[in-house]
Amino acid sequence: MEGLLTTNNVWMMLCTALVFFMHMGFSFLEIGLTRQKNTINILFKNVFIICVGLLLYYIGGFNLMYPGFGEGEMGILKFAGFGIEAPLNTEGTLDLAYSGGYTYWTDFLFQGMFAATAATIVSGAVAERIKIGPFMIFTIVYVGLIYPIVGSWQWGVGFLNVLGNTQAEADLIRTAAETAPDAKGFHDFAGSTLVHSVGGWAALIAVYLLGPRIGKFGEDGKPKAIPGHNIPLAAGGVLILWLGWFGFNGGSVLSADPAGTSLVLVTTCLAAAAGGVGAFIFSTLLYKNLDLTMFLNGILGGLVGITAGADLMSPFESIIIGLLAGAIIVLAVALIDKIKLDDPVGAIAVHLVCGIWGTLAVGIFGVKAGGDQFLYQLAGVGATATFCSISAFIIIFALKKTVGIRVSKEEELDGLDIHEHGMDAYADFRMNQH
Amino acid sequence: MEGLLTTNNVWMMLCTALVFFMHMGFSFLEIGLTRQKNTINILFKNVFIICVGLLLYYIGGFNLMYPGFGEGEMGILKFAGFGIEAPLNTEGTLDLAYSGGYTYWTDFLFQGMFAATAATIVSGAVAERIKIGPFMIFTIVYVGLIYPIVGSWQWGVGFLNVLGNTQAEADLIRTAAETAPDAKGFHDFAGSTLVHSVGGWAALIAVYLLGPRIGKFGEDGKPKAIPGHNIPLAAGGVLILWLGWFGFNGGSVLSADPAGTSLVLVTTCLAAAAGGVGAFIFSTLLYKNLDLTMFLNGILGGLVGITAGADLMSPFESIIIGLLAGAIIVLAVALIDKIKLDDPVGAIAVHLVCGIWGTLAVGIFGVKAGGDQFLYQLAGVGATATFCSISAFIIIFALKKTVGIRVSKEEELDGLDIHEHGMDAYADFRMNQH
Amino acid sequence: MEGLLTTNNVWMMLCTALVFFMHMGFSFLEIGLTRQKNTINILFKNVFIICVGLLLYYIGGFNLMYPGFGEGEMGILKFAGFGIEAPLNTEGTLDLAYSGGYTYWTDFLFQGMFAATAATIVSGAVAERIKIGPFMIFTIVYVGLIYPIVGSWQWGVGFLNVLGNTQAEADLIRTAAETAPDAKGFHDFAGSTLVHSVGGWAALIAVYLLGPRIGKFGEDGKPKAIPGHNIPLAAGGVLILWLGWFGFNGGSVLSADPAGTSLVLVTTCLAAAAGGVGAFIFSTLLYKNLDLTMFLNGILGGLVGITAGADLMSPFESIIIGLLAGAIIVLAVALIDKIKLDDPVGAIAVHLVCGIWGTLAVGIFGVKAGGDQFLYQLAGVGATATFCSISAFIIIFALKKTVGIRVSKEEELDGLDIHEHGMDAYADFRMNQH
Repeated sequence: MEGLLTTNNVWMMLCTALVFFMHMGFSFLEIGLTRQKNTINILFKNVFIICVGLLLYYIGGFNLMYPGFGEGEMGILKFAGFGIEAPLNTEGTLDLAYSGGYTYWTDFLFQGMFAATAATIVSGAVAERIKIGPFMIFTIVYVGLIYPIVGSWQWGVGFLNVLGNTQAEADLIRTAAETAPDAKGFHDFAGSTLVHSVGGWAALIAVYLLGPRIGKFGEDGKPKAIPGHNIPLAAGGVLILWLGWFGFNGGSVLSADPAGTSLVLVTTCLAAAAGGVGAFIFSTLLYKNLDLTMFLNGILGGLVGITAGADLMSPFESIIIGLLAGAIIVLAVALIDKIKLDDPVGAIAVHLVCGIWGTLAVGIFGVKAGGDQFLYQLAGVGATATFCSISAFIIIFALKKTVGIRVSKEEELDGLDIHEHGMDAYADFRMNQH
Repeated sequence: MEGLLTTNNVWMMLCTALVFFMHMGFSFLEIGLTRQKNTINILFKNVFIICVGLLLYYIGGFNLMYPGFGEGEMGILKFAGFGIEAPLNTEGTLDLAYSGGYTYWTDFLFQGMFAATAATIVSGAVAERIKIGPFMIFTIVYVGLIYPIVGSWQWGVGFLNVLGNTQAEADLIRTAAETAPDAKGFHDFAGSTLVHSVGGWAALIAVYLLGPRIGKFGEDGKPKAIPGHNIPLAAGGVLILWLGWFGFNGGSVLSADPAGTSLVLVTTCLAAAAGGVGAFIFSTLLYKNLDLTMFLNGILGGLVGITAGADLMSPFESIIIGLLAGAIIVLAVALIDKIKLDDPVGAIAVHLVCGIWGTLAVGIFGVKAGGDQFLYQLAGVGATATFCSISAFIIIFALKKTVGIRVSKEEELDGLDIHEHGMDAYADFRMNQH
Repeated sequence: MEGLLTTNNVWMMLCTALVFFMHMGFSFLEIGLTRQKNTINILFKNVFIICVGLLLYYIGGFNLMYPGFGEGEMGILKFAGFGIEAPLNTEGTLDLAYSGGYTYWTDFLFQGMFAATAATIVSGAVAERIKIGPFMIFTIVYVGLIYPIVGSWQWGVGFLNVLGNTQAEADLIRTAAETAPDAKGFHDFAGSTLVHSVGGWAALIAVYLLGPRIGKFGEDGKPKAIPGHNIPLAAGGVLILWLGWFGFNGGSVLSADPAGTSLVLVTTCLAAAAGGVGAFIFSTLLYKNLDLTMFLNGILGGLVGITAGADLMSPFESIIIGLLAGAIIVLAVALIDKIKLDDPVGAIAVHLVCGIWGTLAVGIFGVKAGGDQFLYQLAGVGATATFCSISAFIIIFALKKTVGIRVSKEEELDGLDIHEHGMDAYADFRMNQH
């Protein structure tokens, strides 16, 4: 037993490390797809998110999201207090029976690494024009409050998790009683909705309230490409994100169960591959162009798309989900351009649209497919959409009307690096001005 | 028992992740050592290889390479069907006795990550002048068919694996009978021949059929250096590859056996270090120049060189193999230049020449050293050389005579990025034209 | 038992891989914060350090640092011989009882990955002006001799480890007798002093003897900023280092003990986050500028600061240690500028100053806090300071007076890449001269 616990814990710790590494992937992707003059600013935002996200999760996020495991304590929005305190056994050492699979510390750190991701998604969408101060405030509120609240609805055994159960069943599930039945409701294995869409809704609202970058839409209203400045970094970022997804999805099994973890890795990787190929084929048919950015975003779309049901799908189903995610990416990017939203890195298409797709796919494919499940999935999407859009709107609109959220025209044209940070990302290189 | 299985499976899954990460190493190395005008093209090829390689391995590669574990089903080229289907136990859940050490899903994914590597090796050698369409077709055939067929000869318990056994012994080995003796034949622990040379032979043939890049050989026939454009990425790529080799060789133990895995990591790392130092010293003596590229390729040569016998060598022997691999790299690079083959990243020297060296070294050093073993090793090298050269020649020659394999002179001079992808890797940077 | 050993060994091997990966982090950080004209030189030095460091640790370092586990053999500076030889059991196979947690090979490789780090720290501080030949000689002596000697004082159960024990107790501890009491002396969990300060003292001495880069201090004596040329690589390097610290500290538990390892990861990550935030806030208050480099160095300062006591601190204490480390970084960087030492990457502030801070913090915070412990910590800092400064001075001063340690003015202005390596890191890019 101690051996198995140790193995589970090792797996979870290494998955935590991989999820941490995703922040490097996000940073490189976002840098690569934007202009060099805003590079320092993007790095600053991302490093800020990681550090502050983790500290906020320590201060209150973890306790807000998982309101406790004691009898009767389970529920929505029951805050378990500031700071974290590991449960001890009667000998005063760490209670290793905290969960079947890992220690309290591992649980905190794994979940903490997830928390910062929501704001990172937003960071890409608002790049190159948002004021850094208001973005920091937004990050603190969104990561510190909104993300854990939504997370508690499902992973804290909140209402979404038990949508199909009776109240009596739900009570049993929440007290983790031995006689507790399976939770029947919403299914979101590793967070197509709870992580990716939570970030995606805020990205959508923020992009809407910010407006497009200068020059993104011509006087004729047509979108102009603003090319990214470092595509090797962008591609490296995507490969790092794929690597990180081994931990993101693999760790969401919450144990090292051989059958469970290895199936999840297979469905995850096949969906990623199929997402890339789907986007590549579809965009080539549509635009007669071998578009690397579309290929890369297709991979990410496949990964986001499989995240809700990675534990439920057969390899074949995961390929279908991925292929469709790839096609969806191509359409979503075109649609977002059409409605004149400016999302420099495609974050809304990847995280919001494919997050919704992956969540609904749980009702269509795999072990739980069925009409009821589809409705639960819709309910989860709807609840998140409502709460996150409104929260994000309130936060960002308030910031817009008080301190302002957009840098001056001069600063945007010169680049945020010089104005906000007094620093140049590539001091020795000669640059084109644009 | 369940604990040990879980641990083995965790190790194999994490090794799989590390082998996946090698694709980022290959991409960065290849980009770094070539010109900026072909960067998008290289990234596109590499991302294509990963995604399509994995899907092809799902469709048929895995079943071609490992034709089955049932009684009497073992053998060469017995195709087990399309798609993958995990063996279930009588309760209908995943059969955890599939192998002693890990699940069917883990097996598929670990081997799938290896499969794409063969085409990646070729990608580097043909960079900056190959048409992307024909390269994709080549990749599909080579990764989908040639790689698994050669792999089955040894890892599918084919003829190479039992070269020194009688027919009766071979039958016992193939049915995995309890009374089965050890396989006596060819030894290729993690693929000096079965992965690296398989890629290397195709690289050699492709480079020969493609011809050198414009400007590589002057009118006097002397080779001109065409400098790589991003050496930090190249160096980072090599370090990532070294890291990935922890999984490539460490996972090839096919369990987390403490003695086996840890010895393999020690021999792997010492050979890498010795390969670098060997190439550094030898090239400094020869050319009076501290050549970083040679140092880096020496590390890779040491890694490829130890791959066939990482499980058989003492630490001291692994250092000797690495030092010699480093010296071999320096000589091989000079020789390949001399015979007017243009291999922009040194893939032939690293993967083919050091692959052969590592394979033969199993007959000279380590636990199995001896005349018989040396002959088995020669047989493995010869069989692979014959089959891979001829297959690669047929595929590439057919492509050359039909659709053509080389881009136009104009496209080569302008760079493939603009013509094939309509995109620039470094839009904000000012570039030198060459 | 075998299961637990296997799990421990898997954990230690993967931590070894993560520590190896730190060399990529160091390389990227150092490249990013210096000028492009010295990039090849920096990469060459770093690759040299990894390869030669590992080989030296094989040749003698491991046996110097851990002089043996047999009865009565323990002690300071008892060299156990050249090369490494794994202890075998009576059956002639690897003795798995070598330690409770992992094999001899794993032990060697994990410790070997640490060894090279000391010289890497120096590399950053002396960048852009040191002659590569003398640097190589310094590396060989410092990594091959000085690092393992200091390490043996504590981790080889030398005098520092048993400062508070009687001689009789120390003898029992050294023979690993069952009746041995706990070692009472100096505590340095993963090497705030034994790795980071060991490198830091040599960096300080080397910077002093080398003098500043041309142009670093104006005629008025005021420091001028010499901006780094690739900040995305620098930021990526820091994130890779943070990832590597999962293995650096996590592996220093020397087993996969669930409570121990997971607490260490939590304290490590919280200190890193707090270090970044501390430096960010403090530097913003002081300089009214969102300084990314300071933020990044704050993260590293937090990591170095927690390294000595990561196993002893509560999450809250680790945050305090990190916050203070972040503030210390800001002050130390200013101070080092003020006394006209030129450390291009901030290595002295990060590794020496925060290394001392983290070591002393063990006497102030956490389970062992107290006056005696503080004195033991001071003793460890003092002993290392004395021995390392003097050793580094002797080596570098001797090199200075014989072969010279500084490149010519012309070479420094042109960049070391062209003169020492005949190679350009970014051949296709147009550069500014400075």
